[in-house]
Amino acid sequence: MSIVIIRRDDKTNLWKEALQKAAPDIKVYSFLEDHPKHDIEVALVWKHPEGTLSKYPNLKYIASSGAGVDFIFADESTPKNLPITRVVDTMLAIDMSEHVIAVIFSYLKNLNSYKIAQTKAIWKPMPYRRISDFKVGILGLGALGSILAADLVRFGFRTQGWSTSQKSIEGVVTFGGKDQLAEFLATTEILVCLLPLTNETEGILNTALFQQLPEGAHVINVARGGHLIDADLIEMIDNGHLSGASLDVYHQEPLSSEHPFWRHDKIHMTPHYASVSDTDSVVPQIIENYRLMKKGTPLLNQVSPSKGY
Amino acid sequence: MSIVIIRRDDKTNLWKEALQKAAPDIKVYSFLEDHPKHDIEVALVWKHPEGTLSKYPNLKYIASSGAGVDFIFADESTPKNLPITRVVDTMLAIDMSEHVIAVIFSYLKNLNSYKIAQTKAIWKPMPYRRISDFKVGILGLGALGSILAADLVRFGFRTQGWSTSQKSIEGVVTFGGKDQLAEFLATTEILVCLLPLTNETEGILNTALFQQLPEGAHVINVARGGHLIDADLIEMIDNGHLSGASLDVYHQEPLSSEHPFWRHDKIHMTPHYASVSDTDSVVPQIIENYRLMKKGTPLLNQVSPSKGY
Repeated sequence: MSIVIIRRDDKTNLWKEALQKAAPDIKVYSFLEDHPKHDIEVALVWKHPEGTLSKYPNLKYIASSGAGVDFIFADESTPKNLPITRVVDTMLAIDMSEHVIAVIFSYLKNLNSYKIAQTKAIWKPMPYRRISDFKVGILGLGALGSILAADLVRFGFRTQGWSTSQKSIEGVVTFGGKDQLAEFLATTEILVCLLPLTNETEGILNTALFQQLPEGAHVINVARGGHLIDADLIEMIDNGHLSGASLDVYHQEPLSSEHPFWRHDKIHMTPHYASVSDTDSVVPQIIENYRLMKKGTPLLNQVSPSKGY
Repeated sequence: MSIVIIRRDDKTNLWKEALQKAAPDIKVYSFLEDHPKHDIEVALVWKHPEGTLSKYPNLKYIASSGAGVDFIFADESTPKNLPITRVVDTMLAIDMSEHVIAVIFSYLKNLNSYKIAQTKAIWKPMPYRRISDFKVGILGLGALGSILAADLVRFGFRTQGWSTSQKSIEGVVTFGGKDQLAEFLATTEILVCLLPLTNETEGILNTALFQQLPEGAHVINVARGGHLIDADLIEMIDNGHLSGASLDVYHQEPLSSEHPFWRHDKIHMTPHYASVSDTDSVVPQIIENYRLMKKGTPLLNQVSPSKGY
């Protein structure tokens, strides 16, 4: 009885070794090596090649090795009715929060523009902005959004957040449900998207939403490329309604070098690396779930197939 | 009896108007217009052209409109034995602190490198660093350094500071005097220079000091260009001892486009704009000092000619 690791990046063996080291009694395979398909009970996956999950007749559950599970639902060949788990990891949430704060500071202090100016040896002071100048609004107050909200408050940002059901976080003005989305957007000057990607949220960052933000707002998407309508973002920046955007996620990753985002001087890009699951931090919860499954006890961090997260 | 404003930037009239608006009873001149030299009691200066201060026979004191006064001492024609005041402004300290924090975050999360990669449409994830990975050390715990230290502690950075006489700041490990400088440097992974520029501190950021920092340290100079030996910095980055530097100040400003800093990919430049004296915030203390002088009461924020700050 064993675990198979299926990933499209170059970290399959890294995860295999980390699991083996932490639990020598559990048999762990890479999907790239010969392995007995009938013995596999758990697939630990990260953006697996489509179709690979249908090869295991005795699979008990599917474990995402990151916070997101959208790629599991997106694969139509994923076996139905199996439990799906995700990672809820403090380190992942801290990394995401620090990334978003870095991106906000860089925007406030024009560091991206100065870096471009430096490549041209241009000395050009630009007015800076202060923490106190902006209200930051977070779309999505789940495991990641709620940590970010608390950090922003601690750092002195006026902070608000929206989620489908209203949450309570100390120092944060919270909005809940579709009825309160307009009010949230109208008062958000820096918008951070940390929503899960579901049928409900796909394409939510579009012209209609951007128009509800105040003029000059800055948009940060660190959730999934599928949340954003790329052409709408470019249009709303170019017509002056938005001041710019900071993106970590894209429809296609790596993003084609032909995509207009690369050459837009008000769009600041990072290559989907805001927060990366750390094996040291995540492996223990993978093993704990495996042992719970063996005992027949409910799994931790199980996602809801109906909600998609 | 009146004030003259002498600046080398384009803000002389801005300051004149701000002073006149705040205190219509005080006569204020720009040094660029005809003005009665005998009437001038106060020179409000920012990097004045050398020699301009010697033209006022009845000058009572010289007021810097910023935190620094080094340019006043550097002008050999500055009348001796006159009181010199500087600005001690919370807004200036907050701006400086937010700038340094922005620069640190940008370094942790590789945002400068990603911006360069973006200009070349290169998708290249780089390992990021966390707040918890670094100990930040501040050289100089005066009005600016002590606010930065408190902010860094609030943001979760392990923070230490060095000053000529040991200070006490909650949550900050402090070192005092030359005897403790080596210990401070040996444990500082991100070094922030916020010292005043004096005969004692000129050229303090040199090879001998850099060698005392741990390998891979990052240097941030937001004080004065005169603190840094430019060639030493480049050499210590190129030989791998330092991981890079973030600079806001230079020996010559604007910096010549021929200077090697512009083209060094591990040096991140901003054009001496970390914090800029805001007339709204500073004018009231300029006027208060003028009224104290008229009453014969001691001036606020007077600097020590022997210390040079």
